[in-house]
Amino acid sequence: MEIENLAFLKHFFRFNRRVYLDHNATTPVSRRVQREMTRVLTSHYGNPSSLYGIARKSAEMVEKARRQVAGAVGADAAEIIFTSCATESNNAVVHAASAHFFPGRKKIITTPIEHPSVLNTLAHLQTRGVVVEVCPVDGRGRLRLDELERQIDADTFLVCCIVANNETGVIQDIRAVAEIAQRHGALVLADCVQAPGKIPVDLHGWGVDYAAFSAHKLYGPKGIGALYVKQGSPFEPLLHGGHQEGGLRAGTESLHNIVGFGAACQDVKTLLAHAPETRALRRRLIERLKQAKPDCVINSPEEAECLPNTLSVTFPGVENAELMAMLDFRGVAVSAGSACSTGDDAPSHVLQALGISAQAARQTIRFSLGRDNTAADIDYTVRVIRDTLAGRTPVVNMGPALVNESILFDEGTFILDVRPPDDRRRYKGLPNAHEVPGFSLTVEKYLKQIPRDKRILVVCPGGGLSVMVSYYLKAKGYPRVTNLRGGLDAWRARRGDLYQKYAGQNIQMLEPDEAG
Amino acid sequence: MEIENLAFLKHFFRFNRRVYLDHNATTPVSRRVQREMTRVLTSHYGNPSSLYGIARKSAEMVEKARRQVAGAVGADAAEIIFTSCATESNNAVVHAASAHFFPGRKKIITTPIEHPSVLNTLAHLQTRGVVVEVCPVDGRGRLRLDELERQIDADTFLVCCIVANNETGVIQDIRAVAEIAQRHGALVLADCVQAPGKIPVDLHGWGVDYAAFSAHKLYGPKGIGALYVKQGSPFEPLLHGGHQEGGLRAGTESLHNIVGFGAACQDVKTLLAHAPETRALRRRLIERLKQAKPDCVINSPEEAECLPNTLSVTFPGVENAELMAMLDFRGVAVSAGSACSTGDDAPSHVLQALGISAQAARQTIRFSLGRDNTAADIDYTVRVIRDTLAGRTPVVNMGPALVNESILFDEGTFILDVRPPDDRRRYKGLPNAHEVPGFSLTVEKYLKQIPRDKRILVVCPGGGLSVMVSYYLKAKGYPRVTNLRGGLDAWRARRGDLYQKYAGQNIQMLEPDEAG
Repeated sequence: MEIENLAFLKHFFRFNRRVYLDHNATTPVSRRVQREMTRVLTSHYGNPSSLYGIARKSAEMVEKARRQVAGAVGADAAEIIFTSCATESNNAVVHAASAHFFPGRKKIITTPIEHPSVLNTLAHLQTRGVVVEVCPVDGRGRLRLDELERQIDADTFLVCCIVANNETGVIQDIRAVAEIAQRHGALVLADCVQAPGKIPVDLHGWGVDYAAFSAHKLYGPKGIGALYVKQGSPFEPLLHGGHQEGGLRAGTESLHNIVGFGAACQDVKTLLAHAPETRALRRRLIERLKQAKPDCVINSPEEAECLPNTLSVTFPGVENAELMAMLDFRGVAVSAGSACSTGDDAPSHVLQALGISAQAARQTIRFSLGRDNTAADIDYTVRVIRDTLAGRTPVVNMGPALVNESILFDEGTFILDVRPPDDRRRYKGLPNAHEVPGFSLTVEKYLKQIPRDKRILVVCPGGGLSVMVSYYLKAKGYPRVTNLRGGLDAWRARRGDLYQKYAGQNIQMLEPDEAG
Repeated sequence: MEIENLAFLKHFFRFNRRVYLDHNATTPVSRRVQREMTRVLTSHYGNPSSLYGIARKSAEMVEKARRQVAGAVGADAAEIIFTSCATESNNAVVHAASAHFFPGRKKIITTPIEHPSVLNTLAHLQTRGVVVEVCPVDGRGRLRLDELERQIDADTFLVCCIVANNETGVIQDIRAVAEIAQRHGALVLADCVQAPGKIPVDLHGWGVDYAAFSAHKLYGPKGIGALYVKQGSPFEPLLHGGHQEGGLRAGTESLHNIVGFGAACQDVKTLLAHAPETRALRRRLIERLKQAKPDCVINSPEEAECLPNTLSVTFPGVENAELMAMLDFRGVAVSAGSACSTGDDAPSHVLQALGISAQAARQTIRFSLGRDNTAADIDYTVRVIRDTLAGRTPVVNMGPALVNESILFDEGTFILDVRPPDDRRRYKGLPNAHEVPGFSLTVEKYLKQIPRDKRILVVCPGGGLSVMVSYYLKAKGYPRVTNLRGGLDAWRARRGDLYQKYAGQNIQMLEPDEAG
């Protein structure tokens, strides 16, 4: 066998290896949960709100799941409301508390490292006059309790605190936060999405008033969340309609998802017992990364204050988009931060709150481990990073200033614009670009129309999506792939003259090679 | 074999026959949808918002489903937003339109026969100053277009119109409604939940601005809805958070549900082709019912104006709670109206809008057929109704005035209170009652604690739930079961003296026989 063939095989196996290190974004559905859900999908279709036999059975299954969820988080079943996701739970609490207290009391205090579903809802309520104050965190990401004491007053009706942060893994002293809030007559929303199965959750013991949960962070299904409302805390529904969930959340119950959530919660103890192994893998990852790049910076706090599975690392001088793309190219899934922030080109608000510069934030990767990861996964991941740092990357990056008329109108260049539709609506793209329709980032379906004999210039709004697509095309054998670094945003900023003159001219929309 | 045994067998087989005639409440998940969803649950867990390979695959699946849904309703894929249910879709539209126009323009016009997810959201917005006007329907349930012309003005920014009503099946001339609205510069929300697969849906042709859909009315999964926003119509998200759905609906996408919805939409043509058979069964049902009870009244309009599967019938002199309970006892699932209104003791707002009295509404049953129903199902259902009308019902009903001290404190009476928890919180129950915990209506788990040698008096808020449970207990062999007619509401009204003196005394909460 010739050497080329061996090299090909090596490449092939590399490319087919899969290491999933993004469990804070979502988790695979466990076998047991799959089984339970399939049972419901095939055999139980009664509407839990109806009255006849099969419907009563459905209602019973909802209540069983409610007890399972409550049991996993230290609550009573009557305090759990099923929602469509944690985003809905967080939205609902912020709206309900505001409806109850505002305008009599006006102030909400939040940490700067909440999930977008809290921060963006608060921003929305600010437009209606609610006063939002941000209580700072220290360099490790821990809420400054002294500052909270200083800021909280009789006008404060709600404190929002993410129990375990999704990006760095920092755990708050939620009990202390609740104690301070309670002393001042304010309620507490604890975003617990990342907590169950990673750290013990004890809502009654913590003394919080509201808490948000999501099944899909816990080896359960996507599209089902829970909301804890402590007995007696004020609440009103966000969704109006039928009488479901005791009149507190309208809409037909997603029976299979609710049953799946309940089943997932039954694994919480097993997951907690597994935490030391995960923590050991995390240590191994830190150690190997320090060897591969001694100046890398760990943004996550010390183990005692951190989720056992989460590690945020800055690689000075290395763009995270490029590193993620290379990892993806070789089968490793990691992220820059929250999946919900993807597409937002602003650097992570969480990292910036820790005092990390915008530049360093763009050089930061989040690893989040899961129960099926092994030491071999860690070692393989670090090997890929080591290769990337050593410059073994096959994609050319082009700075925005270099994209001039001779490139834009070059017959030998095929411009591929992979912006999602809403970005396309926002501003015009490069002239002569070929755009991919739909929200999809996948170019699999358009390969026949992307010529192999031209240089492919891939562009997107911020340069992150395009680099992933660039590596994908490289993997598909395209010999010359170039990525527009910084994306169209950077190009517009640097070459406003060309944007004014040419943008949006002669755009072609690609059609799928075959109807999907 | 002795006669008793034969009778027992006959009863047994009767009780195990299942006829589902409540497809407007929800439908079983089709095999094909089940398969597609199982494939996702077992193999595709990438978060569609992430950037790496498995996530891009997920994003692609979401976009494929979006095209499938759009294709089934005459829309472009870019106009479809996935939501958690049609209730969310309706809520989102009403809020978004109000946020855009109010307070510059103040008026929303609605039909009186909308789903609670529209009417209750409108009621909520009325508290903020939005003016809601109800445009009447005629005796068949059709919107009075002349009245709409009269009421609509430059201040009107939205018209809400349910394309096909869930309770009677009446279909509106939505094209005409949209034409009138458009002429006055108002937008139209078309609640299309009951339409796909029953009548052709052509959103672009109809000219509406917004439309709501739900998968679980269409042999798809519960917990996934869609929202159509016509290109260019104003919209802002109801849920704030991440950038999902082009920034229009935050929250991690319920991938398996979305794929299931898309798969269900592929059956729309087949379902439409099946409509004539369904219509024939509906005719058979009308015919047989008229034979069984000649004075029964059909509330649904003529075939040309009615969904092929829906039939609302009033049985003068017969309480629908009792008839439904008897049908349930013998395996037939029907409903009094919207499942979302269950637990609401008020008579149907839809029927009242048609000019039907509250009393007649309480004597009305909705039958809604599905693709698996047969002529034998229809005949069996009518046979059960005939038996019930002939007085062959095994449960005793007791009027509220008769529940006096001698019954309440009778050693030989076991009082079983099956109220859901939120009703328990609202007011006190009968003294010496045994209550069932949780939201559940199922008493299966408490049978060991319910004595067979006593008279069981079953009570609930309105007398509807209790009659179902009464029949269930009868089926389980309890010799003496009595239902409190009109429920605790009626008893409080009739015996306020006893309520003041004894209510809430000596309540016992039952525990499940074995832990669930």
